[in-house]
Amino acid sequence: MTTNQQIHLVSRPAVEASVDNFKLVQATVPELKNGQVLVRHHFMSLDPYMRGRMNDAKSYAVPQPLNAVMQGGTVGEIVASKNAAYAAGDKVVGFGGWQLYSVVDAGAPGVLRKVDTQHIPLSAYLGAVGMPGVTAWYGLTQICKPGAGKTVVVSAASGAVGSVVGQLAKARGCRAIGIAGGTDKCGYVVNDLGFDACIDYKAHKDAKSLYDAVKDATPDGVDGYFENVGGAVFDAVLPRMNAFGRNALCGMISGYDGEPIPLKQPQLLLTNRLTLEGFIVSEHMEFWPEALKELGTMVATGKLKYRESVAQGLAAAPEAFLGLLKGKNFGKQVVKLV
Amino acid sequence: MTTNQQIHLVSRPAVEASVDNFKLVQATVPELKNGQVLVRHHFMSLDPYMRGRMNDAKSYAVPQPLNAVMQGGTVGEIVASKNAAYAAGDKVVGFGGWQLYSVVDAGAPGVLRKVDTQHIPLSAYLGAVGMPGVTAWYGLTQICKPGAGKTVVVSAASGAVGSVVGQLAKARGCRAIGIAGGTDKCGYVVNDLGFDACIDYKAHKDAKSLYDAVKDATPDGVDGYFENVGGAVFDAVLPRMNAFGRNALCGMISGYDGEPIPLKQPQLLLTNRLTLEGFIVSEHMEFWPEALKELGTMVATGKLKYRESVAQGLAAAPEAFLGLLKGKNFGKQVVKLV
Repeated sequence: MTTNQQIHLVSRPAVEASVDNFKLVQATVPELKNGQVLVRHHFMSLDPYMRGRMNDAKSYAVPQPLNAVMQGGTVGEIVASKNAAYAAGDKVVGFGGWQLYSVVDAGAPGVLRKVDTQHIPLSAYLGAVGMPGVTAWYGLTQICKPGAGKTVVVSAASGAVGSVVGQLAKARGCRAIGIAGGTDKCGYVVNDLGFDACIDYKAHKDAKSLYDAVKDATPDGVDGYFENVGGAVFDAVLPRMNAFGRNALCGMISGYDGEPIPLKQPQLLLTNRLTLEGFIVSEHMEFWPEALKELGTMVATGKLKYRESVAQGLAAAPEAFLGLLKGKNFGKQVVKLV
Repeated sequence: MTTNQQIHLVSRPAVEASVDNFKLVQATVPELKNGQVLVRHHFMSLDPYMRGRMNDAKSYAVPQPLNAVMQGGTVGEIVASKNAAYAAGDKVVGFGGWQLYSVVDAGAPGVLRKVDTQHIPLSAYLGAVGMPGVTAWYGLTQICKPGAGKTVVVSAASGAVGSVVGQLAKARGCRAIGIAGGTDKCGYVVNDLGFDACIDYKAHKDAKSLYDAVKDATPDGVDGYFENVGGAVFDAVLPRMNAFGRNALCGMISGYDGEPIPLKQPQLLLTNRLTLEGFIVSEHMEFWPEALKELGTMVATGKLKYRESVAQGLAAAPEAFLGLLKGKNFGKQVVKLV
């Protein structure tokens, strides 16, 4: 009988999440029933949205249950199969959670997808060719909808989502401006990813200074803003939005681990006739095939670059996740299990 | 030579607008040139947007020039014409400003429109069958887009715009909830206008109490919100929005006469996947004919009710305008000149 290891959520954060909210648990893998497959996870995805699910509050997702495996995206390999559509050795993307193995009813729609690892690395299906990539694609092309020559700004620009937003914007002839934390991340965003400019928010200690930096980087104003961060960054970009500018609200990570952060000048939404839309990519599954096709082709041909922060081993997941909430990761945060 | 009287803007408010910003000025009416008409104003419109134009700041409108006639909508009668399309006695809607008479180049597109006063009172063309009515129509039907059975909330519900929003919503089979200041206004909104409920924000001294009142009035949540007020009222409604709720941002009068008022929980826009759109009805002229047709028919047949606060005489305009900013009006604020 195969031994499994899992990380459970055992308590909910009062305010800030901590390692004490998680617990490493030993388990055994049950026998496969007909239709099921056993997946050995090679990589687990750590994503900001998981923080919201740790709370027991009304949110867009059902709360993560207590004393159960932390849920999340995984890529891995079929190691045993009682389903004719899957064979040992198949590489698959799924939602296996924070554990070494998962047993999956592979016949249920959407739970498992076989992927090509000849042209695209397996872990990329958790990032640029996975949920974060499609998130970037959807927010940019369906909400911001910038025309060629327009200016797009994206926060958390070196991250799994932000890095794709800017590169897709450049591919569409836009001017792409990133906002990220630190000179390393900003250098990467401009030199490796090809953004036109990147603002290091950590170099600006007050709202005026950050606003001035955004202003300098956007001489023609901002037409589309892709928000991953919220808080002071949102307050600095909003006054630069041009009339009829469009805001895709994807994440507000700066407020996830504490009290909500107010938006200082909501009247700008009116005076500049802005559009703002909050979205969750899993509610727009009809766009995934088109998005994944473009993203996969771009990665396979080297036109879409990405970077990963790789934590080693299941036990490292809680610490890596808490670091992600503080921006300690550099690029897509994954946990390597094999 | 006809004597004219005008009110000029002579200074800009530091923070709060005051009567000292305005000055009553004597003037003479110039001779008509070919193509021009002379309009004697019967009513002037006072509208919240005028406050924004008193500032010399980037806004959706060009600032009102200093030492010039305050601009604004007017209805009146042609008293002299050198334009073949207009004859003395014609009733017209225009943008004549805060003065007794205006000389209009009547051939320019959109500056003057002849109106029927047999079925619709002249002053209604400044309200329910004018810019405020079309504003209500556009925000409700093009942004909130509520289906039958859905819940629509509108702030400043007894006002020129809000009163129309709720009645149009009811005509479309929605549940209409108003927010207004005072028991008189709320009684009018429910008993005369036919809203399902109205919340008196003045009866609630803290955020929790106001939120609870909104919650009680919206057991199924809120699907469409039409915002005229901003500030504490917006903060109380936003947490009641259902997933995919739609917000039409038309006005934020609570912040016009001072510093911007922050939005306390912007993360709700994300977690509930809300859409928010700021708009100005003058930028959507293509919808005016359809809107005015519905609004005019409803007023003429008694299906759309409205109420006016009437200030008497040009000199009363500044005081009435400042009262409007504080919610002292009850219904559409006009100034009667004849």
